[in-house]
Amino acid sequence: MADTARHPEPRYGNRPTMKDVAARAGVGLKTVSRVVNAEPGVTPDTERRVQEAIDALGFRRNDSARVLRKGRTASIGLVLEDLADPFYGPLNRAIEEVARAHGALLINGSSAEDPDREQELVLALCARRVDGLIIIPAGHDHRYLEPEIKAGVATVFVDRPAGRIEADAVLSDSFGGARSGTAHLVAHGHRRIGFIGDQPRIHTAVERLGGYRAAMAEAGLPVEDSWVSLGTTVPERVHEAVVSMLKAPEPVTAILTGNNRVTVTVVRALAAHERPVALVGFDDIELADLLNPGVTVIAQDAATLGRTAAERLFRRLDGAPEAPGQVVVPTRLIARGSGELPPPADR
Amino acid sequence: MADTARHPEPRYGNRPTMKDVAARAGVGLKTVSRVVNAEPGVTPDTERRVQEAIDALGFRRNDSARVLRKGRTASIGLVLEDLADPFYGPLNRAIEEVARAHGALLINGSSAEDPDREQELVLALCARRVDGLIIIPAGHDHRYLEPEIKAGVATVFVDRPAGRIEADAVLSDSFGGARSGTAHLVAHGHRRIGFIGDQPRIHTAVERLGGYRAAMAEAGLPVEDSWVSLGTTVPERVHEAVVSMLKAPEPVTAILTGNNRVTVTVVRALAAHERPVALVGFDDIELADLLNPGVTVIAQDAATLGRTAAERLFRRLDGAPEAPGQVVVPTRLIARGSGELPPPADR
Repeated sequence: MADTARHPEPRYGNRPTMKDVAARAGVGLKTVSRVVNAEPGVTPDTERRVQEAIDALGFRRNDSARVLRKGRTASIGLVLEDLADPFYGPLNRAIEEVARAHGALLINGSSAEDPDREQELVLALCARRVDGLIIIPAGHDHRYLEPEIKAGVATVFVDRPAGRIEADAVLSDSFGGARSGTAHLVAHGHRRIGFIGDQPRIHTAVERLGGYRAAMAEAGLPVEDSWVSLGTTVPERVHEAVVSMLKAPEPVTAILTGNNRVTVTVVRALAAHERPVALVGFDDIELADLLNPGVTVIAQDAATLGRTAAERLFRRLDGAPEAPGQVVVPTRLIARGSGELPPPADR
Repeated sequence: MADTARHPEPRYGNRPTMKDVAARAGVGLKTVSRVVNAEPGVTPDTERRVQEAIDALGFRRNDSARVLRKGRTASIGLVLEDLADPFYGPLNRAIEEVARAHGALLINGSSAEDPDREQELVLALCARRVDGLIIIPAGHDHRYLEPEIKAGVATVFVDRPAGRIEADAVLSDSFGGARSGTAHLVAHGHRRIGFIGDQPRIHTAVERLGGYRAAMAEAGLPVEDSWVSLGTTVPERVHEAVVSMLKAPEPVTAILTGNNRVTVTVVRALAAHERPVALVGFDDIELADLLNPGVTVIAQDAATLGRTAAERLFRRLDGAPEAPGQVVVPTRLIARGSGELPPPADR
């Protein structure tokens, strides 16, 4: 994983912690906790010293603690794109495991790829006093989050970066994965390779298209307009795109897909086609190994994405002072047969 | 769907609503809302009448509204078994859609099939002042929930019923589905049919085993101990169970599985077996139609389970006075090839 800071000035980590208060007052953390939570066992003199440190540092006790009827569970919010997409299952679970290890509840919801809904959900979570947020963004302008971040809500983006604010992001190597998948098809003799991806306003869709174009250019191959389809991933549209690429005057002999939803539909469409067409899918899919041919994929490590994002979030909540940066998680090509099919002999 | 009340006395619906207050005070709902939220536009006389109705009925404004910094978003909690199980994706999404239509946030977490973790999570959600709970229970004793239910937290169980309390439950017809799947294999000539299910402390595992045994008994067929495997669904254990059933002195010629995780492993194990073995899987799995043979399944309608549970929860929150009951959602057998394979001619 490459960790690249993109901003020289730390924008997080300015929020004073109980540790800072303890250091300034010259007392232990437990004593600060007792004062903050109005528990007995602190002498008036010590209490005054702690209170002075709290005032001097502008320490704010986490508000969520005050609204609890029982317990003191912290919580983090997770905004996904679609709760039913199997790609997010392991990501969701990995985040929950880290949250649980930190004694925090996970609150989540999905944006359904709608920027307004994303903003509404994020602000509703902030109103619910989450301690931190992990966001798979649908939108491209996250300036609405700046007051929340200033107020101390730690924020990490995952799968796609934030727009118009500096924030931590944990991303798959979409560009590199698509490039290596395309190069794999080229290495197996293909010259006319199609790409079927998601809507071009989605960051990963653009990155994967970029990786595809880069590999084609590196191989000295042209990309015809009719070989590229970007749009909704509803099965009907994807099916039409496959049919049109295979019927074109210069039909493709191989297809690279932009995500798991597209792959599933393309596998169905190719199963009904009279001759074999090579396929490399972005994202692994269950049972891909048992199909005939097995589906060659560029696998993302969704669990590592989730775990890395959640661990970064809790480091932020602990007051880690690093500048926001990006972590890029590598992808992995898994050859299973469909990506190793040669082009037809007459092409 | 069959809706059967199991308890003669309504235990929900006693919580007075704003509607009840409005009726008793002889004013409109908006007026009650103004009084409750301390908004202007109500005469002192009307305010007194509303306050008297509130006191007489014991109406409590939803506490969660008071803790919000902005907005008045209600929330419901969802306790799943495993966020990464694809079965729960459509269920999760259906619940979220209903919650959203009611302007409520969805807060969720998973129990990892651990009753203690379920209880901890449920109580943490109650402490966070969720308005209602949808629970896929891991445990069998939900008396810990009684104080919360009395305090007005609406609760609906889904996929599995509550234990030792009367509560709404929305369930798949596990018994009927497993019976029809087994009868389907019998109808295709099988006499030695194995069953590989989940741990016997899980309600659906027991129901599905019961349906299998019922169909075998109805066909006048014995069930050898070595044909039944109940336990963890980790691939290694399931694989061992398949191998042992196929190596037995009286080997099975067909297998019924108890859930999607088991099916995926059995499909893998059978793909490596030298001769065809019939298979009916409980739960549909993605790409089941593209395998060779296609996998015959008993499909559950996870979206209907989720939607029905969420709609029932919001009816409860609106003060619906019915007694708690069970809704049973039917399953559907989808024949794709694996369940229609005949037994070997020499068996």
